[in-house]
Amino acid sequence: MHKPLAAPPSETVQAQVAKTRRAARALARLSGDDRNRLLLAAADEIEARSADILAANQRDCDALAPQVASGKVAQAMAKRLKTSAAGVREMAAHVRDVAKLADPLAQVFSTTELDDGLILEKVSCPLGVIAVIFESRPDVVPQVGSLAIKTGNGLVLKGGTEARQTNRVLHAIWREVLARHAAALADAICLLEERAEIMQVLGMERDIDLVVPRGSTEFVNFVFQNSCIPVLGHGSGICHIYVDASADLEKSKPIIVDAKAQYPAACNSVEKVLIHEAVADRFLPELAAALQQAGVEIRGCERSRRIVPGISAATEEDWQTEYCDLKLTVRVVRDLDEAIDHIERYGSRHTESILTEDTSAAERFLDEVDAASVFHNASTRFADGYRYGFGAEVGISTSKLHARGPVGMEGLISYKYKLRGSGQTVSPYAEGKRTFKHKKR
Amino acid sequence: MHKPLAAPPSETVQAQVAKTRRAARALARLSGDDRNRLLLAAADEIEARSADILAANQRDCDALAPQVASGKVAQAMAKRLKTSAAGVREMAAHVRDVAKLADPLAQVFSTTELDDGLILEKVSCPLGVIAVIFESRPDVVPQVGSLAIKTGNGLVLKGGTEARQTNRVLHAIWREVLARHAAALADAICLLEERAEIMQVLGMERDIDLVVPRGSTEFVNFVFQNSCIPVLGHGSGICHIYVDASADLEKSKPIIVDAKAQYPAACNSVEKVLIHEAVADRFLPELAAALQQAGVEIRGCERSRRIVPGISAATEEDWQTEYCDLKLTVRVVRDLDEAIDHIERYGSRHTESILTEDTSAAERFLDEVDAASVFHNASTRFADGYRYGFGAEVGISTSKLHARGPVGMEGLISYKYKLRGSGQTVSPYAEGKRTFKHKKR
Repeated sequence: MHKPLAAPPSETVQAQVAKTRRAARALARLSGDDRNRLLLAAADEIEARSADILAANQRDCDALAPQVASGKVAQAMAKRLKTSAAGVREMAAHVRDVAKLADPLAQVFSTTELDDGLILEKVSCPLGVIAVIFESRPDVVPQVGSLAIKTGNGLVLKGGTEARQTNRVLHAIWREVLARHAAALADAICLLEERAEIMQVLGMERDIDLVVPRGSTEFVNFVFQNSCIPVLGHGSGICHIYVDASADLEKSKPIIVDAKAQYPAACNSVEKVLIHEAVADRFLPELAAALQQAGVEIRGCERSRRIVPGISAATEEDWQTEYCDLKLTVRVVRDLDEAIDHIERYGSRHTESILTEDTSAAERFLDEVDAASVFHNASTRFADGYRYGFGAEVGISTSKLHARGPVGMEGLISYKYKLRGSGQTVSPYAEGKRTFKHKKR
Repeated sequence: MHKPLAAPPSETVQAQVAKTRRAARALARLSGDDRNRLLLAAADEIEARSADILAANQRDCDALAPQVASGKVAQAMAKRLKTSAAGVREMAAHVRDVAKLADPLAQVFSTTELDDGLILEKVSCPLGVIAVIFESRPDVVPQVGSLAIKTGNGLVLKGGTEARQTNRVLHAIWREVLARHAAALADAICLLEERAEIMQVLGMERDIDLVVPRGSTEFVNFVFQNSCIPVLGHGSGICHIYVDASADLEKSKPIIVDAKAQYPAACNSVEKVLIHEAVADRFLPELAAALQQAGVEIRGCERSRRIVPGISAATEEDWQTEYCDLKLTVRVVRDLDEAIDHIERYGSRHTESILTEDTSAAERFLDEVDAASVFHNASTRFADGYRYGFGAEVGISTSKLHARGPVGMEGLISYKYKLRGSGQTVSPYAEGKRTFKHKKR
């Protein structure tokens, strides 16, 4: 089941992942209390080693500085890489937050008595081994590590070269805390450092159950195309806001400015605004002024350019592009149906919002628009695991299977069916001598 | 996001799937009662047109007869193709059963008050459009059709050439019942007939949300390798039974014979038996005699061949092979750990069973073996949607994401997050001026 590009795993990566898989089995056998103890011990250790973490982080930042100065690396990357004493305290606090969540492995989803002495239980269980490939931000190591331990999963981490020193110290903390609890747990979280190892990881569909790529759209799409392992992530976030005929225009303006300008690089920032023709003449000039004041460059359809002549013409490519920048494309639409059709055609099924005081229009939009998150009278920027109250976020998924939208702990568990019998064979049921009871308990 | 082999969709298939996608949106807008009315109307129509269905089926069987006679096509395929008056009544009955199930689209999984007037709801929704590729058995058309309508999904069916006439009549019934309810629904279920169209379907990841391949292991693996669309299915079923030191041997023998011989072609039939060394000397000769009486050919490891000299030697390939036939491989193992390790290495994560009177050994096996279905003292043949009480089965999934094991209606739904606000922007939360309440309702 290899797709062509995945490289055969080298002895080393294969051996490391096999060790992680074995340690994951030991981890899954621990009680929920024991898994929480590991988390609390790691949080204490992170705080105790704050100076080590900060020193390592400084070395990483120093090493990156010349590349930032020469323009080879974006300022934004350097900013994401840098942590602080407060940042380290926050890492520890987030690990403690995960310890407080209910045990995801203790769930019985259903119990059915198939027949006398033949009981079927559907129970939660870990996925197995998860691989997370990420860039710069070193807080991924404690954050994803705590989710993996909480859910009883092995974890293969591949961090960016730029954060190598910081990642090593944070990974060493996990390793020590795990080994101190039991030697068999030591390898439950492993850290890969070489870029070449990514292709090897993507080819290990028998040993890795889920890949979470965190990075650029290009990188995420590359992973989707080059692995037979299920992928949790999102390629792009082409989010729309539709301003309905019955929108409260005073309310609408700040929502759109927030959705675009509050943090334009985020995947949940708005990229396209669709405006009902009944309010376009009045709203568009006001909106354009507010956006331009926030530094946003506007492109638009023919009709919108007739209303605000200063807007440059939008091309077909504009509708398909996630700018991640202070740019926005606007279109005047005939009605709600045209807005829904536009989103069906161009949306990336991430987050879509309608602004209206007409409840039935809002409910139609929420029901019919095919996206992970559908909003009424709110900024698209709310689509986020922390804002949704999940405690910790694995990523945002635009897949409709398994885990959708912002994904918390539940994205890292599966279920299995346990059937407890007393010697039953299928024959008497197949021959009609016995019938199933199928009694739900 | 194309993998290389998927062909670009032809105008015709693309146009058909687009119509199905549009009709699916109309279907998802119907109330649960209306969707049930469609099902009951179809069930009545199936019964009313029994003679048409049987005549078409006879034409299919006649057309296949020469190929069966010449040995080009297996007898088993001819048998699966053939239906009867009772078979048609059963098709109608199964459609009515689906109508009785609770509405899967009416589920609210959680409601969270993020802040005053900002309410987040996690609700069920259809996947969109599902493609099911199947062979011979024409009862797939009413069965999967009823699940698609119940779950508000569009359905693209591609049946085998050998069942073309029967499939056409059954598909015409869906089409008429849908069109009679509303013209916009007519295309919600479409039927493709050309083999070449399969490759086109596999390349349409924007318009098809899930592919369900039902057929040979080779075909299912081909689909897994050649589509970026999520696949629900299972490649092979290499199921094990482990006979523990504390097994009740009298109980164990009929379970193993049932699991192997009751229907050896099924994916949930047992392929390998692992026997604890403490009971091997006593149990293996008895088991071999019982299996040989049922016509089963046995292969085995060195130790088992010393106990029962008539057994032929098992090769490495045997452990990796799903026979789907009256063949079985046996191995003597040192203990429960060796059995679990063997299953971890060779199992296809479908269904695994332990036979023992030792509850703690049973619980360890159920917890630690990584498979969709894990059984204690029961035949592996129980792993089946009907036997689990799901009413109707889409397929059996060995994936751990989304849907696992026998998959009923819930495998065809996803969820979305609906956020209802009153003009909120992210800025005040990002700037620390407001904090989230995250109050679960």
